[in-house]
Amino acid sequence: MRRRGFFIAAALVIGAIAIAAATAGMAAQETGHDRLYQVSTIDALLQGVYDGTVSVAALQREGDIGTGTFDRLDGELTLLDGVVWQARADGSVSRAPPNETTPFAAVTRFRADRTGALGPAGNFSGLEHRLAGFLSSPNLFAMVRADGTFDYVKVRAPPAQSKPYPRLADAIAQQGVHELRNVSGTLVGTYTPPYATGVAITGWHVHFISADRRFGGHVLDLATDGTPGVGVDDISSFTVVLPVGTDFTETDFSQNLSSDLQVVEKGQ
Amino acid sequence: MRRRGFFIAAALVIGAIAIAAATAGMAAQETGHDRLYQVSTIDALLQGVYDGTVSVAALQREGDIGTGTFDRLDGELTLLDGVVWQARADGSVSRAPPNETTPFAAVTRFRADRTGALGPAGNFSGLEHRLAGFLSSPNLFAMVRADGTFDYVKVRAPPAQSKPYPRLADAIAQQGVHELRNVSGTLVGTYTPPYATGVAITGWHVHFISADRRFGGHVLDLATDGTPGVGVDDISSFTVVLPVGTDFTETDFSQNLSSDLQVVEKGQ
Repeated sequence: MRRRGFFIAAALVIGAIAIAAATAGMAAQETGHDRLYQVSTIDALLQGVYDGTVSVAALQREGDIGTGTFDRLDGELTLLDGVVWQARADGSVSRAPPNETTPFAAVTRFRADRTGALGPAGNFSGLEHRLAGFLSSPNLFAMVRADGTFDYVKVRAPPAQSKPYPRLADAIAQQGVHELRNVSGTLVGTYTPPYATGVAITGWHVHFISADRRFGGHVLDLATDGTPGVGVDDISSFTVVLPVGTDFTETDFSQNLSSDLQVVEKGQ
Repeated sequence: MRRRGFFIAAALVIGAIAIAAATAGMAAQETGHDRLYQVSTIDALLQGVYDGTVSVAALQREGDIGTGTFDRLDGELTLLDGVVWQARADGSVSRAPPNETTPFAAVTRFRADRTGALGPAGNFSGLEHRLAGFLSSPNLFAMVRADGTFDYVKVRAPPAQSKPYPRLADAIAQQGVHELRNVSGTLVGTYTPPYATGVAITGWHVHFISADRRFGGHVLDLATDGTPGVGVDDISSFTVVLPVGTDFTETDFSQNLSSDLQVVEKGQ
């Protein structure tokens, strides 16, 4: 009877664990849709809501690839293969501690739907054009990574800010800008459809991290002979978690901040 | 030994089921934030993307209260206390079958953060003003319900459309409009912050279902002596599931559809 009792117990436990795993899996996939998980809104970041609300450790539970920034706007966040890298204004790059926090980030679990060679590009507009060729629809979100050696990459990162926080378009006046030629590494980029303006960064938003993890940030300019390999993950579901307990709840969001976004994205 | 084996099995099974329940609960609450679950975007509905993509049964798994419409725009959807009601253009109201689908809906699990008496209102603008008094911040989403006897309620519901689907502002020209005085029932409404324009229905969007479940739809006008009781649930996280496999991926979303939304919401 001991053996029989054990087998019944084992069978029931395995069944219950299978239910637990299936439940967690269903939730993570949002009923089969690839999901983008975003902390806060781009309009909040543009207005200076820089207090971190979600830890690096919590962010890593929501995805293994993505972009963002850190508490007080202390540099550019790049999540790649499950590791969060912090590129600061002084040009340094380091692993972000698990208890560091982010006021804005967008991440997903990467599963490439399409792959191919990037194709040549002489500047950031050329890169956007190449990446757009990999989208299945301009109305779905997408996460992209491109791995290889790039002829030229120019990145920026803002320094940590003090309260009262300036608007993002003003804060980036102090950004550190760094560039490298013939650098091996990975582009990590998000594509956001036009209807999500105000919530997410519409169009392309691209970060870079070098293969030696010593150079990285928000990509301002780039040149490539086209050899890097691209993978694109179509995303048909997105979750936004609002930063309650910060200035967010008091901020005036009645303005259209598209022109601010243009300044911030292009670094001009 | 039989009894001992049974107790071990029971303890392990209960433990594993507890893990499953905790996992599901954590996912549903999105790390403690109340979550709005939305099917598609308001701009897609405004452009005529009426093919249902999520079943009534699936919608009920994401919330117990909310609003929306049905496949082919066949009436107004009101989810209340876990039951989905379909109010059609002819004035009829019935329980929606579990395999009926929705092209657009927004639902949550209701937990009131604040309650109180609604206060008097002579028209829909007055209602909006009263409801706004219950918000904790104009920058968070909210779900509201108001239960009681209303002096006057005027509702509309659109009839099912045929392909090629007209834009929503054109489709509602055929809407059925119905009104009742001294009607007991429940208002179910969502509040969406201004930055989410294009994705969700900014401002207030309110449906009604009578206590006898024979009258309901999208609220166009209303008068109340203020006695109905209000409950408001603050929502700080939202998930949008895009309607892949429909006209959505081919639709042009470059236009601002705010004026269309105004026409549709006010029924004019």
